[in-house]
Amino acid sequence: MRIGFQGEAFSYSDRACRDLFPDAERVGFGSFTAAFEAIRDGVVDRLVLPIENSTTGSVLPVLDRLLPGNVRIVAEHLVEVRHCLLACPGARLEQIRVVRSHPEALAQAEAIITHRGWFPVPAHDTAGAVRLVAERADPTEAALAPREAAEPHRLVVLEEDVVDREHNTTRFVVVAPGVQPIPADADKTSVAFTTLHQPGALALALTELGLRGANLTRIESRPSEEAWRYRFFVDLTHPPGPEGVASVFEPPPATLTDLRFLGSYRAAR
Amino acid sequence: MRIGFQGEAFSYSDRACRDLFPDAERVGFGSFTAAFEAIRDGVVDRLVLPIENSTTGSVLPVLDRLLPGNVRIVAEHLVEVRHCLLACPGARLEQIRVVRSHPEALAQAEAIITHRGWFPVPAHDTAGAVRLVAERADPTEAALAPREAAEPHRLVVLEEDVVDREHNTTRFVVVAPGVQPIPADADKTSVAFTTLHQPGALALALTELGLRGANLTRIESRPSEEAWRYRFFVDLTHPPGPEGVASVFEPPPATLTDLRFLGSYRAAR
Repeated sequence: MRIGFQGEAFSYSDRACRDLFPDAERVGFGSFTAAFEAIRDGVVDRLVLPIENSTTGSVLPVLDRLLPGNVRIVAEHLVEVRHCLLACPGARLEQIRVVRSHPEALAQAEAIITHRGWFPVPAHDTAGAVRLVAERADPTEAALAPREAAEPHRLVVLEEDVVDREHNTTRFVVVAPGVQPIPADADKTSVAFTTLHQPGALALALTELGLRGANLTRIESRPSEEAWRYRFFVDLTHPPGPEGVASVFEPPPATLTDLRFLGSYRAAR
Repeated sequence: MRIGFQGEAFSYSDRACRDLFPDAERVGFGSFTAAFEAIRDGVVDRLVLPIENSTTGSVLPVLDRLLPGNVRIVAEHLVEVRHCLLACPGARLEQIRVVRSHPEALAQAEAIITHRGWFPVPAHDTAGAVRLVAERADPTEAALAPREAAEPHRLVVLEEDVVDREHNTTRFVVVAPGVQPIPADADKTSVAFTTLHQPGALALALTELGLRGANLTRIESRPSEEAWRYRFFVDLTHPPGPEGVASVFEPPPATLTDLRFLGSYRAAR
């Protein structure tokens, strides 16, 4: 198995890959576009991608690339994100002036960074920031990154838990090529849809899905390609297996249009 | 009037400030945290902040800072975002290898950047990227930024409309300190709420709001501070003025809890 992710070794995406596929070959890509092209072309067998963070929200560029329906979500995995402050051996916390990391990580610690008077410098990913801090060997610079990135780059952990909110979790999904069968233990489904142009169309659809036994765990609207129409991204839990999915979505609620299945999988516990 | 924004001169936030308050003094801050502290302390009279982009979604760190209720949204403003590729005079498009910009701007052009083989380098904001490209004067580097940033930095526009999606709009809001009266022409309201722990609680609340004459224009769920409970951010249009707001929200739908008003304002046309 070859597993693709976006970023470098020792990023959070890489950690999610190792959690899920400890023995697989891992391949990092420079962009989501490149990662999705790799699975389309058979260069990798699965992708592991961030889809939502509890502090900074949905990763919409990933959701967008799931819409065409040529891949499916087959699993989800939660990673608790507790950034550490990594610096060169000998550096002291009081010396730090510049903090490098992925923009999402900097956003998750924005209040701390502002109050300490650190200057945030965005990097392509957390692991890339670590590499840069190691190369520059400047004791006034640190990287905000996962703990496991320290040792391979010969850095030390100056501080742990550098995040603004107590709960900071990133939800990753495993993506497989083509239309996948619904596993017998799948009790969660991700869909996207638009609604009829009529007042209360969304409320009616959600009521109908609820009456059929589905429980909404996430909803997000965003403008669709068609101006003034919204597409909704919705995650639902439901009775397990293909029968459970059918009981909720067949037939689709009458006010739903352009219903697309992004995948059915077992909800992370 | 002193108007605060996040970023540097000639960023999109600065453009929104100039659209809305052409004669005011504008003050850029290095972070959202610093901007919100400035309005709390009376250093500025209003903030102009991005709250949603049609390609990359909500700006959750801004939504979060509106929750305590010590400021209110008093207006919204849409800015069409058409990034240009800015480089040093004499640079040719074929030479470009590195593209610098704010991570959101890079994400809005990710497919183009990948296919051209450019190397994306994140910057603190679009205008900051322009400054860096001007300082380095390297003909293989360009910034992805608003057109008006070119002239003050003596750069040229190599290419226009460098965005993946045809419609790429950022919604800005004007934020004022304290609880503001509801203007007579306010026909849109932003609220946040949680719901009772019961199946269909959200669907019931949306149905109720719809029956009272409100039209949902945006909805987003995100985990609240309390584990396993979601907070919903909702924008609604409604009949104008204080009476219109009261007709929709008084009394609040029975399944809503912790209802917070983020502001009532006139919907952008």
